[in-house]
Amino acid sequence: MSKDYLDRAKLKMDSLTKPQESLGLLEVIAQRYAAIAEDMNPSVSRKVIFTFAGDHGVVEEGVSAFPKGVTIQMVMNMLAGGAAVNVFARHVGAKVVIVDIGVDHDFTSAQGLVINKVGYGTKNFTQGPAMTYEQALRSIRVGMDLADEYAKKGVDIIGTGEMGIGNTTPSSAILSVLSGLSAREVTDRGTGIDDGALQKKVDVIERGIQLNQPDPQDPIDVLARVGGFEIGGIAGLIIGCAFHRIPAVVDGFISTAGAMIAVALWPTINEYLFFSHLSSEAGHSKMLEQLGQRPILDLAMRLGEGTGAALAMSVIEAATKVMTEMATFASAGVNEGM
Amino acid sequence: MSKDYLDRAKLKMDSLTKPQESLGLLEVIAQRYAAIAEDMNPSVSRKVIFTFAGDHGVVEEGVSAFPKGVTIQMVMNMLAGGAAVNVFARHVGAKVVIVDIGVDHDFTSAQGLVINKVGYGTKNFTQGPAMTYEQALRSIRVGMDLADEYAKKGVDIIGTGEMGIGNTTPSSAILSVLSGLSAREVTDRGTGIDDGALQKKVDVIERGIQLNQPDPQDPIDVLARVGGFEIGGIAGLIIGCAFHRIPAVVDGFISTAGAMIAVALWPTINEYLFFSHLSSEAGHSKMLEQLGQRPILDLAMRLGEGTGAALAMSVIEAATKVMTEMATFASAGVNEGM
Repeated sequence: MSKDYLDRAKLKMDSLTKPQESLGLLEVIAQRYAAIAEDMNPSVSRKVIFTFAGDHGVVEEGVSAFPKGVTIQMVMNMLAGGAAVNVFARHVGAKVVIVDIGVDHDFTSAQGLVINKVGYGTKNFTQGPAMTYEQALRSIRVGMDLADEYAKKGVDIIGTGEMGIGNTTPSSAILSVLSGLSAREVTDRGTGIDDGALQKKVDVIERGIQLNQPDPQDPIDVLARVGGFEIGGIAGLIIGCAFHRIPAVVDGFISTAGAMIAVALWPTINEYLFFSHLSSEAGHSKMLEQLGQRPILDLAMRLGEGTGAALAMSVIEAATKVMTEMATFASAGVNEGM
Repeated sequence: MSKDYLDRAKLKMDSLTKPQESLGLLEVIAQRYAAIAEDMNPSVSRKVIFTFAGDHGVVEEGVSAFPKGVTIQMVMNMLAGGAAVNVFARHVGAKVVIVDIGVDHDFTSAQGLVINKVGYGTKNFTQGPAMTYEQALRSIRVGMDLADEYAKKGVDIIGTGEMGIGNTTPSSAILSVLSGLSAREVTDRGTGIDDGALQKKVDVIERGIQLNQPDPQDPIDVLARVGGFEIGGIAGLIIGCAFHRIPAVVDGFISTAGAMIAVALWPTINEYLFFSHLSSEAGHSKMLEQLGQRPILDLAMRLGEGTGAALAMSVIEAATKVMTEMATFASAGVNEGM
């Protein structure tokens, strides 16, 4: 990110009719946004949330509170506009694009649905790798291609989201491998499993890592062995957004697993990301610590889909409007203080 | 607040297509909102932010980084739409009403300005009481009357705000008196004073409390001796809103001083309030602790005006839309989990 744009944004911010830095993190957000977009009058009006959907073979180990078929049902719910992400996206003026990157089902084409399958769900990673190395690369490529397409269409900001029953399990596994933390430390209840299932989930993650021996120096290998298609899609999307100077808002725990893969591949990407909220899924704070990032919201959400990204987009938009709509001390005839 | 409405709201929330409680504080917010409004399909569309403006005699002690005349200049800036509160209010679809409850200036009438003066600024409370007991009652009444008027007009939600150079000083004094904490513990830099001025501000608050001996058992007396007109206006407004079952969103440090006066008068009021954000002004977390309230946002803001209230209104609106717009498990044909 250009230091020159950051400096110019700070100068502009300090000319506005408010005590310096009195808008706290909103000023930091607006300045980063302007520097990423390379525009001192940045727009946050054209917003798109990409919700990547995929299934997970590891669900057969009993790691989720919901059966696998709910991935399909929730995709249908999202296409009908009835899911939480639809509600929040409408509220903030964002479009939702559902990307079937790996659901174990053939959807008929529909408005708002992109079908670009890397597979019909991953394999159970307690039996072998979740996907091939080539599939991992392809899942990332799906996200990159979407960034290219929407950069051409002219989008201001994108948000990440996902739907995939069982996908906190690969997310915890990725965190464990990339951070060196134990499975116990990074695993939580996902959509609400009980103590017994939680213990099983920790065991499953330990066994998967033990069996597959993912190479922490190779993020593609980590994604292939214990990851998920939607996590790869998110990693590719945010790399592509950074390339096109489109600020990207990362949703919660699973999306941040995607961000960890992206940043492990290319640390520079971290500068181009906003982290929407702190999930109540325990591993999320550890991910943000690893990335050195502070979330915008802290509302104990743990739903995913892109819900946190949607809400944070509105805060980011408010912050940038400070830069584009507020009066300056000079224009308003206000004393600058002593 | 009716427990019955809260229970009904929780039942409705749990029928929606998401894991139970996965929207965290947003669910709590939506349920409280529905219970306050006594409506299971509550609306948050008609929003008004009242920004009470007043001057403070204590400014002559050198407690602020800005000269007193900035209160007038900022009111003019707000009426022209150029202040931060205007930007955020437009962003969330709220109207801003500026209430001149005690600026040391005669404004000509203007769109969006209510003139209802209790005085031309308070007196310097290091020399005697800031205002008379009768003025304290009148300032509260100004806020109550506004609540009546806007309840009739049909408002869904109100936000508090204020503008008054020097007004962190009376706010810290009120907190000190009502909590028993020392002036040192509750005093911070306001709009950005240096170490020398901060020490002076602590001394001023100590002297004011010493001289005036406000009675912590009588919140009107506290408001009169060391308070401000805009703080009284805010206290009255939120009492009036609770009476009319209009959810009120309290802005930052100064607004929360008003909430402390209101809740000290009538503890039930606390159930009807939302606290928008945690200010970086150090005393604010102590106020929220006293009230037992958790803020919605934590963005290190310290600007006032109603800026935090505006942003939080949008989060509250998103939360209520979950209740009114999301599909149920039954309607969407989604399995409820195991």
